[in-house]
This record gives sequence, structure tokens and C-alpha cells, in this order.
Amino acid sequence: MSSQSAFTEHDKLYMARAIELAKKGRFTTTPNPNVGCVLVKDNQIIGEGFHQLAGQGHAEVNALAVAGEKAKGATAYVTLEPCSHYGRTPPCAEGLKAAGIKKVIAAMVDTNPQVAGKGLKILSDAGIEVAHGLLEQEARALNFGFFKRMEQGLPYVTCKLAASIDGKTALKNGKSKWITGPAARKDVQLYRAQSCAILTGADTVLVDNAKLNVRASELPYSLPTNLPLRQPVRVIIDSQNRLTPDLALFKIAHPVIIFTTKVDNSMQWPHFVKHIAVREQQGKVDLTDVLQTLAKHQFNNIWLEAGATLAGKMTELDLIDEYVFYIAPKLMGYDAKSLVNFPELTSMQDTIDLSFNECVRIGDDLRINALKKHALKSFNKEE
Amino acid sequence: MSSQSAFTEHDKLYMARAIELAKKGRFTTTPNPNVGCVLVKDNQIIGEGFHQLAGQGHAEVNALAVAGEKAKGATAYVTLEPCSHYGRTPPCAEGLKAAGIKKVIAAMVDTNPQVAGKGLKILSDAGIEVAHGLLEQEARALNFGFFKRMEQGLPYVTCKLAASIDGKTALKNGKSKWITGPAARKDVQLYRAQSCAILTGADTVLVDNAKLNVRASELPYSLPTNLPLRQPVRVIIDSQNRLTPDLALFKIAHPVIIFTTKVDNSMQWPHFVKHIAVREQQGKVDLTDVLQTLAKHQFNNIWLEAGATLAGKMTELDLIDEYVFYIAPKLMGYDAKSLVNFPELTSMQDTIDLSFNECVRIGDDLRINALKKHALKSFNKEE
Repeated sequence: MSSQSAFTEHDKLYMARAIELAKKGRFTTTPNPNVGCVLVKDNQIIGEGFHQLAGQGHAEVNALAVAGEKAKGATAYVTLEPCSHYGRTPPCAEGLKAAGIKKVIAAMVDTNPQVAGKGLKILSDAGIEVAHGLLEQEARALNFGFFKRMEQGLPYVTCKLAASIDGKTALKNGKSKWITGPAARKDVQLYRAQSCAILTGADTVLVDNAKLNVRASELPYSLPTNLPLRQPVRVIIDSQNRLTPDLALFKIAHPVIIFTTKVDNSMQWPHFVKHIAVREQQGKVDLTDVLQTLAKHQFNNIWLEAGATLAGKMTELDLIDEYVFYIAPKLMGYDAKSLVNFPELTSMQDTIDLSFNECVRIGDDLRINALKKHALKSFNKEE
Repeated sequence: MSSQSAFTEHDKLYMARAIELAKKGRFTTTPNPNVGCVLVKDNQIIGEGFHQLAGQGHAEVNALAVAGEKAKGATAYVTLEPCSHYGRTPPCAEGLKAAGIKKVIAAMVDTNPQVAGKGLKILSDAGIEVAHGLLEQEARALNFGFFKRMEQGLPYVTCKLAASIDGKTALKNGKSKWITGPAARKDVQLYRAQSCAILTGADTVLVDNAKLNVRASELPYSLPTNLPLRQPVRVIIDSQNRLTPDLALFKIAHPVIIFTTKVDNSMQWPHFVKHIAVREQQGKVDLTDVLQTLAKHQFNNIWLEAGATLAGKMTELDLIDEYVFYIAPKLMGYDAKSLVNFPELTSMQDTIDLSFNECVRIGDDLRINALKKHALKSFNKEE
């Protein structure tokens, strides 16, 4: 029932279409996964849909609404096992059953413990033919963050680093504007827009007075839905409570979470700023606790834009799944500042091993995506 | 006569074929340029050839030998203006004339001052229709080193650097084996095999006891001709005469040139080792003088495999045309050793600007080719 060989070429094409549909939700579905659905009868697509926004229709419901009465006797291709539980919407497995769907092919079983096969069982118990395991890898790639959170209680962390081709982020005197070009900066906006949160350290906020928001005008293409641009939550590590409410960051009324070891109640903060105290680790916030807390708050994908110290610490703790290097065609020299700061390695066997996943030209620069060995593959980011 | 628009699609195809043929000479023609020739009559190729080895037939001669009597009335497509001078072989312009060629299309005029339009004039004076400027950029790319030497009296220098993705060449304690993988090392062999010389510093030779030769068994593909593997000349900068004849380098009986400020005659060297004294610059050999001397000795392409100091000095003096970065999927950390050492820059406007030309995956690593802004494009390296 779940072996690849049982699927036809037509099955693959319909599932590939469902995956394309699912990707349209990548800017908006958080904390829900991206899901697409295609309904087929007599070799014709009679309805399709995708999940756009948490609390609104799931992919199956949206596809069924298009198909209407024709859904009876159709086959449903879904990128993820239909849900079995009552959340903000009724279970999709029940919806498919009620519509008279004859067969359901799911790309993969949902690893969300609330589902985990129960959706397929509802269908199967109702006499509907079910199968799964078609284009599973691609389907999984739609929702790395969601699955990592479900499976490990941690978000998928992508660390952005920008450097010259000789690996430098700033001159010895600290100057660094601009290393990469405008196209790379637009590409960063796209990553930010697809992330649940942007994570950085107080240093970066204080030095650059960065706003850390997504600017619609700087996105390289228009969003795939008509929904308003969602702002990722800005998450700042501020172990020593150095941030103050007058920073540019706090002039933009979108959520900010500040992680500290001890909340300082002496200052007045805007309503959208939330302080969370986590465990202390050598005088600083415990970064594993930070990520576990973010996962508990349903954050799937974290975009880390940090300096060498925080990126180095996160690397050392093995908390990063993917690195995105923006590399500029420049040489900055021997004593300029380097990318990631972690304790000195003494053996080549101890180097942090990555695996190159992609290298593309972005304007005059390169973007190189590298996965931490054993980490999950990148979540989807391209149209 | 030389405008692109006057050429037909057929002309372009024949010239593209001539360029493909020319590339077959890239391991062997030094100090001559790579040249290909295609003879066409009644829309049929009746002969083709390329230059293989200095002192042997030029491309035109080889193509004419294939065509024989049929050459009469044919059109010749040559990637470079036919030569007009008696060198080790008679002038090709005369050969084409004698064979009764009706029309000659040259991709480009030869910038060698011994030719420089004279070849085309011989043909034109003989009543042969001539044209040039077809696929000129591609034709020029066949021989960047040769043309740079002709035009500037300097060889084309390609600087090889290998580092982790955070720009490190060795750990703080000096350990560096291996940063890149076996496929990258094979790729280096290919570059070496196409270069006239491998240039390095005494430090690299002393530290690694490197042989700096080409190992046929390590080339990733077989050579395009049946000629024996040519060993590039090994050129070492040894300002302080620190090299000694017992090094591994001198156990392989292929030419070595040692540049020094003052030749030390106290040691016995193998017959294939030549010392050349050049001008002194702050106690070291003047690197511009080194390259000018190499150009005078007819070296077109230099493959620079050096440490951060020599690569930095060559960068500072603007003597490098192209950088080839082999980037390994590893992080080595903040205090590990960096790629190129040149004097501290104090403004971002002073960074050494390159332009990315290519990025390809080589095994687990990446090879990134970057050209010095305003430098020539890479010479051809692929089949």
C-alpha cells in the first residue's frame, strides 16, 4: 500500500502539483504546515487547494469546495496525511469521507503526534482506499521546521552569514558596509518573510539599531497569495538586559520577544514586546532553552542573523540546521574579522562538517546553502 | 567585412567547431596559442585540424593535409588570424593561398606583433576574400595567457586558494590536512597540466616538501591528444636561497626555475634546475620582474599555488588575473588562519574587487572562479 512502485506516472504528476500548491502557503501558514491537495476524477483535476492561513480552511477543505458534488468517487492527492483531530477547523479525514472520496494518496504520514496515522485510519475504516509514500522527500521538504518541532521539540534554525570570499565580515577597524550587494539583501528579505522568527543578539541590535522587519518593497517578487505580508516575530537574546525601548526595533508595532536570564521590570515597554526569562548558562541565556521555548510557542523556522559570537555559540551547541552564506566577490585581508567564533579547534577531525546543498548567483554575490551534517534538508524557499 | 551581422548561422557553427578543435591543444601547445581550423566546401567539412605542439603543423596546415586537392575553392574557418611569418614552420597564410582557398574567416586578428593583420593582408592581396570578428570572445578565451603576454609582456596568473567556507586555510596550530577532498585535488592537477608553469614560494616547498608535478593517474579524464603528458615548469621564489638540492622537488627530472635576488653558487644542482636573479624589492625578489622574466621566457599561463603571504603580495601588486577558490563544507573557526595576507585595509572602498565567473561542485567541495576586475577572462579548461 505504501510502496513507491504501486504509484503510476499520473499519480506522481498529481502529487507534484499538490506540492506546488502547498508552497504557495510558505509565507503565511505558520504555525501550521504547508499542505496542498488535488482532487482527480476520470484523469481530470476537478478541484485543488492549499492551506493559506492557520484557522482558515485546510488544503483538502479548499479543494473539496472547488470540486463540489463532483468530488464523489474522486481520488485525493494530499502532501500530508489528512488531519484526524478537531483544531480550529474540523478533521479533514472526516471531510473527505463525507464528500464521498474513493481513494486518498498522502505523500507522507503526519509526524504530529495528534495525527500520526490516525487520519489514514479514519479513511481506511470508512472503506476508502489509502496509500502513502509518494514524493515523500519533496513533501517533507515543504515543512522541515514543522516536522523538526514535532519530532524534536526544537525549531529548524537557518543561520545567515555574509562575508567576502576570503571569509571576512568586517575590516579590522570594524567597517563592514556594504559587503554584499542589493540583490543579496533582497534575498535576505525573502528568507525573513518565510521564517516564523528572526533571531539575533542584543549586540547586533545595539550596533546597527536594526529594525529586523520585512519590507514588502524589498522583496524580489510578489507574494503567492493576496494575504497581507506577515511579519516574523523578532526574537532578541539579551542576557544582560541592555536593550532600551527607544531603539528603532521598538518603533515598529510588531511582536518582539526578548530572552533574558532575569526580567528587569524597571522599564516601560510597548505592548507588543514580551520578555521571557530562561535558564542561565555561564552568565548568559541558555540557548537550547531559548529554542525549546520557541518551539513550545509553535515557532517552526528560525532565521538567525547574528554576529560571529552568537553564530559561533549556536554552532558549538549544534543548534543550527542550515547555513546560508552570502559571499561577495571581494578580498578583505588577513586581519579582517571572521565569520564564526567558537573555541579553538586543535585537530582537523574536529572541524564543523557541513554539506553544500546549493550555490546560486544573487546579483554580483553568491548564495551558498550548506546543511549541518545529519541535519534536515532546507525548507522550501523558491517559487 | 568584419561585422558580426555579415556572418551566417552556418559560419557560426563551423567556427564553433574550430574552437572546439582548438581546445584539444590546451595541454600541449605552449608557448604557442591554441588554434583550430575547419575547411568547408559546398556546406561540407572537407578537412579540420588543430595545433598540437610547437614546432609541428599549425591548425591550417593540419586541416589542409586532410582536405588535400579538395581544398581548392573552399572556405577556411580559423580561430586566429593565419600567421604571416617564418617561425619553426612556414607561414600559414602562404599555405592557404597555395592550396587555392577562396575565403578565410578568422575569429580574431592576432595581437602578436609579428602577425597583427599581416596574415590577413597576404590573403587579401592574393585576391582571397577575408573576414574576421566571428565568435571573437570565445576565440580570445582560448588563449588569454598568450594574448596577455603579447599585449602586456606579462603572463596570465591564476591563483589557487583552498579554504573552509569560513575562509580558513589551517587551524591556529597550523594543521591543514585535508581541507578539500580528492576530487578538488584532481581538479588542481588539471589546472596544473594546462599551465606553462606552477609558481610557489620557498616556504610552501620547505613546509610541504611538495613535488609540484602533474600526476597522470590523478587527472580526472584522459588527455585529448596522444601526446605525452607535458610537465609544467616548476617556478620557485626563493629570495633567501633557502632551498637545498635534497628536496623532493629535485628528485623529479623536469625543469625547475628558482628566482632569487642573488644566485648562490655554493651548491650543486641537478641539470634541470635553473637559477635566475631578478631585482630586489625590500629584501625580496621583485615579483613584477619575476613575471616579466617568465613572459620573456614565453610563459603564457602561470598557476600560482602559494601561501597567504605570497598570494597576498601578488594581490597587493595586482599581478593576479584570476582566483580559483576551492571551498570545503567545513567551519574552522575564528582564529584559524586566513587566505590572503596583504596590508590592513581601512576603508571598504579599498577591498580587492573581484567578479565571480563560475561556481561548480567538485566532489563535496565547491570551485569558485573569480576574476580580478578588469582582468581577462579565464582560459579554457574544460573538455
